[in-house]
Amino acid sequence: MGKGRLEAFSDGVLAILITIMVLELKVPQGGALGSLRPLVPVFLSYLLSFIYLGIYWNNHHHMLYTVTRVSAGILWANLHLLFWLSLVPFVTAWMGENHFAAQPTALYGGILLMAASAYWMLQRTILASLGPQSRLAEALGRDLKGKISPVLYALAIPAAFLSPWIAGGVYVLVAILWLLPDRRIERAYGGFQG
Amino acid sequence: MGKGRLEAFSDGVLAILITIMVLELKVPQGGALGSLRPLVPVFLSYLLSFIYLGIYWNNHHHMLYTVTRVSAGILWANLHLLFWLSLVPFVTAWMGENHFAAQPTALYGGILLMAASAYWMLQRTILASLGPQSRLAEALGRDLKGKISPVLYALAIPAAFLSPWIAGGVYVLVAILWLLPDRRIERAYGGFQG
Amino acid sequence: MGKGRLEAFSDGVLAILITIMVLELKVPQGGALGSLRPLVPVFLSYLLSFIYLGIYWNNHHHMLYTVTRVSAGILWANLHLLFWLSLVPFVTAWMGENHFAAQPTALYGGILLMAASAYWMLQRTILASLGPQSRLAEALGRDLKGKISPVLYALAIPAAFLSPWIAGGVYVLVAILWLLPDRRIERAYGGFQG
Amino acid sequence: MGKGRLEAFSDGVLAILITIMVLELKVPQGGALGSLRPLVPVFLSYLLSFIYLGIYWNNHHHMLYTVTRVSAGILWANLHLLFWLSLVPFVTAWMGENHFAAQPTALYGGILLMAASAYWMLQRTILASLGPQSRLAEALGRDLKGKISPVLYALAIPAAFLSPWIAGGVYVLVAILWLLPDRRIERAYGGFQG
Repeated sequence: MGKGRLEAFSDGVLAILITIMVLELKVPQGGALGSLRPLVPVFLSYLLSFIYLGIYWNNHHHMLYTVTRVSAGILWANLHLLFWLSLVPFVTAWMGENHFAAQPTALYGGILLMAASAYWMLQRTILASLGPQSRLAEALGRDLKGKISPVLYALAIPAAFLSPWIAGGVYVLVAILWLLPDRRIERAYGGFQG
Repeated sequence: MGKGRLEAFSDGVLAILITIMVLELKVPQGGALGSLRPLVPVFLSYLLSFIYLGIYWNNHHHMLYTVTRVSAGILWANLHLLFWLSLVPFVTAWMGENHFAAQPTALYGGILLMAASAYWMLQRTILASLGPQSRLAEALGRDLKGKISPVLYALAIPAAFLSPWIAGGVYVLVAILWLLPDRRIERAYGGFQG
Repeated sequence: MGKGRLEAFSDGVLAILITIMVLELKVPQGGALGSLRPLVPVFLSYLLSFIYLGIYWNNHHHMLYTVTRVSAGILWANLHLLFWLSLVPFVTAWMGENHFAAQPTALYGGILLMAASAYWMLQRTILASLGPQSRLAEALGRDLKGKISPVLYALAIPAAFLSPWIAGGVYVLVAILWLLPDRRIERAYGGFQG
Repeated sequence: MGKGRLEAFSDGVLAILITIMVLELKVPQGGALGSLRPLVPVFLSYLLSFIYLGIYWNNHHHMLYTVTRVSAGILWANLHLLFWLSLVPFVTAWMGENHFAAQPTALYGGILLMAASAYWMLQRTILASLGPQSRLAEALGRDLKGKISPVLYALAIPAAFLSPWIAGGVYVLVAILWLLPDRRIERAYGGFQG
């Protein structure tokens, strides 16, 4: 019940974030396909962030599946995560409109890093509430992806000043890493995927 | 349960998309009805896209009605569909503000084609998870509408360069085709409509 | 179930509509309270439309409470209602920014009239699906408010050209009429309000 | 059930409000970190309002947890609260863009005061519907925080004209007061937090 509203609110915020990003694709004046060309980097950064927010929604969905009781700590850890995610449309637009310049690309990584940290804190809070023998703990195992991602973001931020393409490549790489479906939690709950 | 959040998230995104389109109806400066005239094509393209998104929501609602277990594949196929639908407000505004010029009208068809393909992929993923004897498979039957629509979009795209009105007519035609209520799935589930 | 998503989607659209209207309260440049003065008519029209959308949500909530099976007809009648309501933010802003000039004030009434008609059609569709002995039919009784409102809007539209204040007064009057809580449906369902 | 939609609608509005505030973080032209500097006060006011809306959502969630039957009075008291909260993005942006000038900072407190009053009225309406022996009444106890907050806002409004920093400090103080998790209601319902 409490969980129902936590999920509904998070779904609402994530659905809005993923959708308002598209408002940064400003409709051009002219009606020729060429007038869309300046939008290409904005579109690419939109695509990347759409995938990232999709991954967060997907993982959030799996993680909360295992929760039965929602504490104040979980509520606030969740809002903390949503706060950092709420800045994604801003950095996405800034990075796209500046054609992946060094500083916006670095800040994009900074926001991803903060969001990943907030996600990790939410996961710790949930794990603590479930106890050490929970199926979520078992399913996460060593949680390699969860540990590697922030490290990669942290490396990408200074790398953006060498070349934004290195940083961008790292962001794409981490996204691909997560897109490979995380079957850990599904496996632990036979009935979830069937 | 998993299904509940999938529906909630999709409903959220679709509700936002259908609503933010109206933000492209920019409030004119003057207070005379005549000052609304330049908005007529924007309004018409809004109306068309409202109907299309309504059709997608309606069909999505029926299709997921039959799903009981949500896999990672379904989650991502669903996000893929939402991605293409998220571009509808953009092409709607571009087409409307350029008074149904050839290239925006063609691109509108391109987005409809991608969305229809994504819908078809989601349907395949769901059908595969349900097995060949599912009531959804039975209800869809030969799925004529689902097969004809992308063909018509694909024809409309080059036709937009001959005359945007042909393309626009095809989009209206396909919408009418779908508006004729799809009773297949309802029929297969006597209890749904009663 | 079907009903659940119909409610969720409608709640989503209504929540977004009621909220994006506030985006028309454009933040003024200066930091003095006086710089808010030009916003007063926009604020008043926002307030009126907030109340109207609140009334629609409230009545929609009560009406659907009695529905158990959702047909394609109900789905589309509902989308038709949402379409007219989606134009409320536009006419609200147009009316407010033009300080309740005659033509925007008349169009506001026109949209209210279309929305009221769409609501009435949705109600007919639901009543037809429930049968003549339904508790909703009983609760609505002669449905005086539902019949008087469109008549008043229809009178207000030409009256706006005599004086927008007459039309505005009628809109406020109708809102007050509905704000007086509609206890009919609640009464018929003892358990709803308790 | 009725409660379900009340929660869903409120969650929707709150999710949208908390998210559209971020649209006021206007993406700057340049790609240098320095071009973000003018956004710092806007960001700080966003952060404060994000926390406030989070607190409202959190408290709303707890308060409604105890409600079983939704009356028309509760519906309208809830919409009244949402109305004042809907003005938060506007005053947040006005305060931020004017770098916490006196008048916007005072108005921010005014909106917080109206929202707190509306919350209190909603709480009274719910308590009246539950009866004097309800667990919510017991859990709220003397409701010190609920009584002190409006007093502090009322003091902060004139203080903003002495120095906006006093007012801002009070807003931060009240937020911290509420961030200290309100375990009263959770304690009264052992099963909620476990």
